[in-house]
Amino acid sequence: MSREKIIIDTDPGQDDAVAILLALASPEEIDLLAITCVAGNVPLALTARNARMVCELAGRRDIPVFAGCDRPLGRALVTAEHVHGKTGLDGPDLPEPTMPLQDAHAVDHIIACLREHDSGTVTLCPLGPLTNIATALQKAPDIAPRIRRIVLMGGAYFAVGNVTPAAEFNIHVDPQAAGIVLKSGVDITMAPLDLTHKALVTESRNAAFRALGTPVGIAVAQMTEFFERYDREKYGSPGAPLHDPCVIAYLLRPDLFSGRHVNVAIETTSELTMGMSVADWWGVTSRAPNALFLGDIDADGFFSLLTERLARL
Amino acid sequence: MSREKIIIDTDPGQDDAVAILLALASPEEIDLLAITCVAGNVPLALTARNARMVCELAGRRDIPVFAGCDRPLGRALVTAEHVHGKTGLDGPDLPEPTMPLQDAHAVDHIIACLREHDSGTVTLCPLGPLTNIATALQKAPDIAPRIRRIVLMGGAYFAVGNVTPAAEFNIHVDPQAAGIVLKSGVDITMAPLDLTHKALVTESRNAAFRALGTPVGIAVAQMTEFFERYDREKYGSPGAPLHDPCVIAYLLRPDLFSGRHVNVAIETTSELTMGMSVADWWGVTSRAPNALFLGDIDADGFFSLLTERLARL
Amino acid sequence: MSREKIIIDTDPGQDDAVAILLALASPEEIDLLAITCVAGNVPLALTARNARMVCELAGRRDIPVFAGCDRPLGRALVTAEHVHGKTGLDGPDLPEPTMPLQDAHAVDHIIACLREHDSGTVTLCPLGPLTNIATALQKAPDIAPRIRRIVLMGGAYFAVGNVTPAAEFNIHVDPQAAGIVLKSGVDITMAPLDLTHKALVTESRNAAFRALGTPVGIAVAQMTEFFERYDREKYGSPGAPLHDPCVIAYLLRPDLFSGRHVNVAIETTSELTMGMSVADWWGVTSRAPNALFLGDIDADGFFSLLTERLARL
Amino acid sequence: MSREKIIIDTDPGQDDAVAILLALASPEEIDLLAITCVAGNVPLALTARNARMVCELAGRRDIPVFAGCDRPLGRALVTAEHVHGKTGLDGPDLPEPTMPLQDAHAVDHIIACLREHDSGTVTLCPLGPLTNIATALQKAPDIAPRIRRIVLMGGAYFAVGNVTPAAEFNIHVDPQAAGIVLKSGVDITMAPLDLTHKALVTESRNAAFRALGTPVGIAVAQMTEFFERYDREKYGSPGAPLHDPCVIAYLLRPDLFSGRHVNVAIETTSELTMGMSVADWWGVTSRAPNALFLGDIDADGFFSLLTERLARL
Repeated sequence: MSREKIIIDTDPGQDDAVAILLALASPEEIDLLAITCVAGNVPLALTARNARMVCELAGRRDIPVFAGCDRPLGRALVTAEHVHGKTGLDGPDLPEPTMPLQDAHAVDHIIACLREHDSGTVTLCPLGPLTNIATALQKAPDIAPRIRRIVLMGGAYFAVGNVTPAAEFNIHVDPQAAGIVLKSGVDITMAPLDLTHKALVTESRNAAFRALGTPVGIAVAQMTEFFERYDREKYGSPGAPLHDPCVIAYLLRPDLFSGRHVNVAIETTSELTMGMSVADWWGVTSRAPNALFLGDIDADGFFSLLTERLARL
Repeated sequence: MSREKIIIDTDPGQDDAVAILLALASPEEIDLLAITCVAGNVPLALTARNARMVCELAGRRDIPVFAGCDRPLGRALVTAEHVHGKTGLDGPDLPEPTMPLQDAHAVDHIIACLREHDSGTVTLCPLGPLTNIATALQKAPDIAPRIRRIVLMGGAYFAVGNVTPAAEFNIHVDPQAAGIVLKSGVDITMAPLDLTHKALVTESRNAAFRALGTPVGIAVAQMTEFFERYDREKYGSPGAPLHDPCVIAYLLRPDLFSGRHVNVAIETTSELTMGMSVADWWGVTSRAPNALFLGDIDADGFFSLLTERLARL
Repeated sequence: MSREKIIIDTDPGQDDAVAILLALASPEEIDLLAITCVAGNVPLALTARNARMVCELAGRRDIPVFAGCDRPLGRALVTAEHVHGKTGLDGPDLPEPTMPLQDAHAVDHIIACLREHDSGTVTLCPLGPLTNIATALQKAPDIAPRIRRIVLMGGAYFAVGNVTPAAEFNIHVDPQAAGIVLKSGVDITMAPLDLTHKALVTESRNAAFRALGTPVGIAVAQMTEFFERYDREKYGSPGAPLHDPCVIAYLLRPDLFSGRHVNVAIETTSELTMGMSVADWWGVTSRAPNALFLGDIDADGFFSLLTERLARL
Repeated sequence: MSREKIIIDTDPGQDDAVAILLALASPEEIDLLAITCVAGNVPLALTARNARMVCELAGRRDIPVFAGCDRPLGRALVTAEHVHGKTGLDGPDLPEPTMPLQDAHAVDHIIACLREHDSGTVTLCPLGPLTNIATALQKAPDIAPRIRRIVLMGGAYFAVGNVTPAAEFNIHVDPQAAGIVLKSGVDITMAPLDLTHKALVTESRNAAFRALGTPVGIAVAQMTEFFERYDREKYGSPGAPLHDPCVIAYLLRPDLFSGRHVNVAIETTSELTMGMSVADWWGVTSRAPNALFLGDIDADGFFSLLTERLARL
């Protein structure tokens, strides 16, 4: 089987960083064409910096990194420094990146890349707010049928919400963008909180990263350690969810995951429930399915995969 | 300890019927002052009929039954015959009731009753849409501080929704009314789907009702059998939730339940999420707690209590 | 032709007062059955007081006055002391009323009154927020077909809004109630700002009231003088609108008015446009007409009628 | 005084066409840098065609014309063929254009153009839905402070709406985009229906166009004749509004116009009032002014200017 060409659209974030590393550690299955950055966990300047720091950590200065939209569609940007720290990548002590940002705008690169490659061969992996993706679909609607699939981290149904009682962070930051993507007709798989809250970084799993002894392993251990503090205290759980790597793991090992093809509609009008991803899990509406909504994961299999792959870097 | 005076406000409904029976079977703890009926599971004429059928089944023609509002505040009535059957009480073959409805309107009786009794001595137990309660609070705001507490069945947070992907039936039918009640300042306890979905009528629990051998036991078995069909198939679970009796059981044995004092806000504007009860379970907002939101139940203890009490009738 | 039996539902308010006086001054055409009070321009205790003061000013202690709802459906009460003064009836120096309030709740009296009189013979004239009317329709839906017609002051389309840029005060205070009334199927005539802003109390019109030389004439001159200050300054017009008397004048002399039978829908969800009365004046939707929306008035004819009638008291 | 550099962003549309012609006829005051097209009155392919037809009619094949967004942000496109005819430019019999569309996307050209020219020297003149402008601001927020000003046709306050009872077409088609533009901080002047409904093409004004005897004059007469049919019948007025040329006329002769600096907020949540431009004309809110909302025009002066300028082509 040929390698899956992907663009990671991201707002690193420690868990975004681990997702990028997992992709870079899996060159036999994944061809990472580019990383496009968006404002989300932290402002755009920091996400564009952090993405390059992660590439350099993996020794992959050749990956082209693009900066995209610095704010959501029609709303003020909300960030999450209380979770990710001031830089978005607090935890390890990594050097400032020296590889350059690409000149082109992330949105334009997404469009150009999808037009260059054969139709149906490029997958988009959004790990943050969907602003870049929606803006690309908006500006160049011809790319929609050219996208192989979108596998994204975002949303929540039974797990309901983290940033508000009804909404997950990535969708809440830019609900308009999420609405555009969900209505695009593209083949979509969502890794929502329902799933990621079953992928907890426990102490032993963190220890396994650290035990790799490599710069990557140690940095990942430091990042997840920092990142986990907030959720572990909030939920009183034995570890905290490792959201974004689930997206890449799904590309590598879909057999570790299960879910349902359902309709997912995004709340874009009411402030109380703004950004809720309303998944018709029980089939009580007549709305047509538009996404595979992942609900469960073999967490041990996932962490084994992750540790094993990170060891290769 | 003295008996708790209660008014049951209800739209029977098989599970409403079991709740009424549980109250009538517990005269040492509960003084059922009246039953007030509202449109909900089925139209008002049927809920007012069904409430009297249940009283007669228990040999309690002395309980005053009142008819109230026949439609929600500003929305068309939505009913649930697909769950409860055409009469709302499908299952057993009970005789038409002969005891009369009271002349007064349910809303007026609730107001008068709260004014007659000492302040802080009457508890309201709403088992259906909150139209009567909200209208009473609206018409006579002086009753709010006179209510001892409201213990209601309604809402959903992690269990999210049954009638829509976001909302539970009782709240969804009349979100405006629910909003008024939740903002009333009264001491409120909610038994949401989160709780009731942990109180499943399994075959053995149903068999225990039937094994009572009494008319009440047999009727309850027949009612729950009918009522459960819908949810059992929908959720693929070994039984279906027995919602409303949880309210009465909570009065009798609060030690069987656990929950959190949180803020619960009702979605009243967006059609997509209309009637969602947004519980701030994780404390991510600054909204002040206004309800005890029950989340767990000792289901075996609950069904033991229920069977033991029904045996007394 | 027989006299038209009416109930005035009101939140006086100087212009409400003038409307009541106009009705009392027209006994040959109008049989004022009762005045029901609601919270609006000022809180309920004051509107119930002011209504009785106006009756006593007209020497009509026999008119039964009822207090109704003290707050809108599900929203906090907004009042308009900046327009009407602290008492709601600032301007003249009238004595405190000594006639009693009736015991019954306004909502119950509206229901009872409509049930007592022959169907189709009683007209409702709401001059404030529609809380009482909506609650009556809600509690006793059988009264809707018994109402002869509803002629109300409220709404705005081209004149857009006074309390917000989109909404008129009466509708904005209780949009839910307005929505219920507009959807009730009753024959409805609306006197919106579009109309009343063409019925300006200029100095000469005010002088005509004063020139009556009677206690009523002088009090009306003092009331309109006080009341007009706000709008005159705001709009920079040669006088300010005299809203509520238009309702009674329409009963007496419909030939002074013109309007269109159109659909009027009430905004009940968005805070920005909350309470807007969206009139399909140009027929651009397929929504069925549900109200006669008055748009123009013969202002000279109206003020002549008003002065001539007030002279009779 | 130096010429004002402008970009016209447009969805022609007969009145858009007249606006373009007016700009081309005013080279001493206006330097038309580019025309960028957007979907609106008709789909994008037609607006991009029509813009070029108009340039060729004026003998200006040198004006660069760009195609932009083919749909609004997150909503389905609504068009207005019932007003503008099937092609959007029904009326005259103009030849298909032969001049090419530019390769770049309209959004990218707007961004590039604003970056190329000195900051504060380029004015945007949107005549259709604001999708291109909002997407440019979204993608490249650095351009906002570089824009000299935005003078746009759109919105309605006292004139309330044309496409719905609450909203004007350009804003209604893409309310999200309008919201983004109004919140951008750029110096904005709006020519709403309030203004344009005072700029009616009467028969004598149309005759004056025709009397020019030139191809441009005759085509403009034919276009306005076709275009006016719909509104003239709808409003029963002696002519129909000529919306878009007001924008260009305002650049040339601001003394012909008057308005107020007020806050304009866009309704983006409620379907009933979606796209309403809520102008705080009376200053009843505390929202800060963000636009000059034009309300009146010297219509004779405007049509004299228009006829005199069109004569130059």
